Amino acid sequence: MPAETQAQQTAIDHLEHLNQALDSGLFVHVREMLHHMAPADIAHILESSPPKTRQILWQLVDHAHSGEILEELGEDMKDQLISLMSPTHLAKVTAGMDTDDLAYVLRSLPDSLYRQVLQSMSVQDRTRVEQALSYPDDTAGSLMNTDTVTIRPDVNIDVVLRYLRQRGELPKATDTLYVVDHQDCLLGGVTLAQLLTYSSSTGIISIMNRQLESIPVTMTDSEVAKLFERHDWLSAPVVDDKGKLLGRITIDDVVDVIREDAEHSLMGMAGMDDAEDTFGPVLKSAGRRSLWLSLNLLTALLAASVSNLFEGTLEKFATVAILMTIVPSMGGVAGNQTLVLVIRGIALGHLGQRNTRWLIVKELLIGVLNGLLWAGLIFIAVWLWKHDVTLGLLIAGAMLVNLTAAGLAGAVIPILLKKLHIDPALAGGMVLTTVTDVVGLFAFLGLATLFLGH
Amino acid sequence: MPAETQAQQTAIDHLEHLNQALDSGLFVHVREMLHHMAPADIAHILESSPPKTRQILWQLVDHAHSGEILEELGEDMKDQLISLMSPTHLAKVTAGMDTDDLAYVLRSLPDSLYRQVLQSMSVQDRTRVEQALSYPDDTAGSLMNTDTVTIRPDVNIDVVLRYLRQRGELPKATDTLYVVDHQDCLLGGVTLAQLLTYSSSTGIISIMNRQLESIPVTMTDSEVAKLFERHDWLSAPVVDDKGKLLGRITIDDVVDVIREDAEHSLMGMAGMDDAEDTFGPVLKSAGRRSLWLSLNLLTALLAASVSNLFEGTLEKFATVAILMTIVPSMGGVAGNQTLVLVIRGIALGHLGQRNTRWLIVKELLIGVLNGLLWAGLIFIAVWLWKHDVTLGLLIAGAMLVNLTAAGLAGAVIPILLKKLHIDPALAGGMVLTTVTDVVGLFAFLGLATLFLGH
Repeated sequence: MPAETQAQQTAIDHLEHLNQALDSGLFVHVREMLHHMAPADIAHILESSPPKTRQILWQLVDHAHSGEILEELGEDMKDQLISLMSPTHLAKVTAGMDTDDLAYVLRSLPDSLYRQVLQSMSVQDRTRVEQALSYPDDTAGSLMNTDTVTIRPDVNIDVVLRYLRQRGELPKATDTLYVVDHQDCLLGGVTLAQLLTYSSSTGIISIMNRQLESIPVTMTDSEVAKLFERHDWLSAPVVDDKGKLLGRITIDDVVDVIREDAEHSLMGMAGMDDAEDTFGPVLKSAGRRSLWLSLNLLTALLAASVSNLFEGTLEKFATVAILMTIVPSMGGVAGNQTLVLVIRGIALGHLGQRNTRWLIVKELLIGVLNGLLWAGLIFIAVWLWKHDVTLGLLIAGAMLVNLTAAGLAGAVIPILLKKLHIDPALAGGMVLTTVTDVVGLFAFLGLATLFLGH
Repeated sequence: MPAETQAQQTAIDHLEHLNQALDSGLFVHVREMLHHMAPADIAHILESSPPKTRQILWQLVDHAHSGEILEELGEDMKDQLISLMSPTHLAKVTAGMDTDDLAYVLRSLPDSLYRQVLQSMSVQDRTRVEQALSYPDDTAGSLMNTDTVTIRPDVNIDVVLRYLRQRGELPKATDTLYVVDHQDCLLGGVTLAQLLTYSSSTGIISIMNRQLESIPVTMTDSEVAKLFERHDWLSAPVVDDKGKLLGRITIDDVVDVIREDAEHSLMGMAGMDDAEDTFGPVLKSAGRRSLWLSLNLLTALLAASVSNLFEGTLEKFATVAILMTIVPSMGGVAGNQTLVLVIRGIALGHLGQRNTRWLIVKELLIGVLNGLLWAGLIFIAVWLWKHDVTLGLLIAGAMLVNLTAAGLAGAVIPILLKKLHIDPALAGGMVLTTVTDVVGLFAFLGLATLFLGH
């Protein structure tokens, strides 16, 4: 696609030019180039650079824009760069940030630095951010901004228009003004489009949307994202349990949540942290991945100890050893398909009490069908290869058992994990592989031991 | 979290109530309940229901809302329900749809039905949709709507306000009016917020954003999504290669693209189609998953044929057979971690020519480090278990070789696949497992054959 090539070209061109300038030590030139780039594009280049280049670039960036750049970066990168900055610099940079990003930066600071930064802020900024920090991470409260524009119900559009002209610029992504009473309780909303299309004598009370849905400040951010997606909202008001307007959430922050949730699932399935920085330091990356590998080693040793139970059979029949990896492997792949489907169903909120049972039965049936199909095919393959009907029947039997178990396990494991409050995207794959390895080996080696004689 | 429970409860409550009413045959009651629900919520309930319930529900849905419900559904479900509808019904339903959704529905129809539906439409709708159909799927053209509101540069805000009041309601998610010349070429944009905050005598030409970025109609939808994410846009104008305004893309459609791309990666890694319907029919699901399982069978047979080369060793040493699954398993997990990281890097557009080499070296180094670590640990484990130093050293050597190969393969495979225009998220895992299985078995069985004597 020419369009794609063009857009990606620009970003990569920038990077190549910057790198050439860096290599030649033309730092003034680099500073000049960075000065003319949008914060989002600088963030992109920082994320695409190895650690050393990154540090140099960060020092050459215009200090006035560092806050905006920080807002655009992934968590791991944000933490890295923050650790390079002095408290006064941090306080200066954070002055212009959105409340939610500001709270994030402060949350990630060590205690002493946190106090220093807070003290170097203006009283207004400090109050604003201290409130934001009082809401738990990953809730609507931590996602919202307090920059709502509110109006009273008993005025007409003309009054609102005069107020807005006097007020000047609206906060970015404002599509709705919130109508509140004297206690700041949310009564409804009026869109900018309504203000522009109704006659100026219209009373706010007669056009405001009283059914405007509001988000409880304690709702989880994933739940907020689902509501935005389902209702195609651009922004939504956030209220406390008494209906008092606290702030608003805008779609751009929700898009970040959707992206993070998606990356969390994708990276989590491979046992990685979604904050993992592609160009992060080698030792840190290696360390982080060890937990997953150590769990896998335990699984692999467990599988080996199952094989160990059938040492006698393995000693006598080398062919059994040669074929014994096939059944666990097929079980792993089939089970993983079911697992991913069910994890997605949970994430989308599709699974209730009644349809869960239906889904488990469905996946079990698919397991049996797959089992019959692949049992037949593996029988033919082994018979053609090893000219041994008994061995073919044994591996076919084991295949049927394991693929049925895989269908059942793939459906039941994520549902059980969810009930135990363990993230299925993170733990599901490992638990599943353990089941399909153990069942697969038990079935094949067990059948071989029973029927091949001692 | 109480908030999450509450929101999910509502959806599941609805479902339970509906199911009870369906079971008791109270169809009038079900129809009444559906009548009071938002289209997005009905879509959610349809997606959460097994096939039979789904068909009954669809027949009970208010025909006036079927179009809106269709817009909210996943592709697989959309196709299922469309196949249940008559051409006249389809034509009626599609009359009120957004251009992009309408084009989708028509694209999925068989040729004869397509003509019938098109003929039952009004001339205006037909022209509109025929244009939308002329753009390839997965491009900005297929994503855009033609409901732009345009103004001329040579008027002032007062004129625009009078025009808007006369015009009435604005298309949903309108945040910007587009300024065009007599040839409909895009000159810039004026936001609703600007219209509300500037004095009414201000000329459009003096406040319009001339730097407004526009999207070429041929750009891929993933590229469009990246631009929206990076710049926090709510909407963006779409132009042809001469700069003529063709339509606009809104963030709600972009959110769907982001969600679909994410699901595509997640489901693709397990060899599933992202359109896969969680509650779809058993036979169809089983069939769809077979391709992946057949590829895996070939991989497993290839691995078995590697073991077969070392039949002599396996015959003499059953312990080798017992331990031989450990090294491939560790290689698979370690390689998959690198693979997922690199696939994400490619998806985010982070990988250029220069940093790719850096990344491959980094992942190779992590492979060596991991290799040394797990070689040490497996040596200890095997030594404690089997009291055999030689065997411990052999498996440790194989582990080092395979984890190094896994790091290298995990980084190189997705980059190579991308160059060959094969989706790395889809094919990467299978290719990687083949490499780590074959290298792992070759290394361990090869070393065992060399050093354990014949």
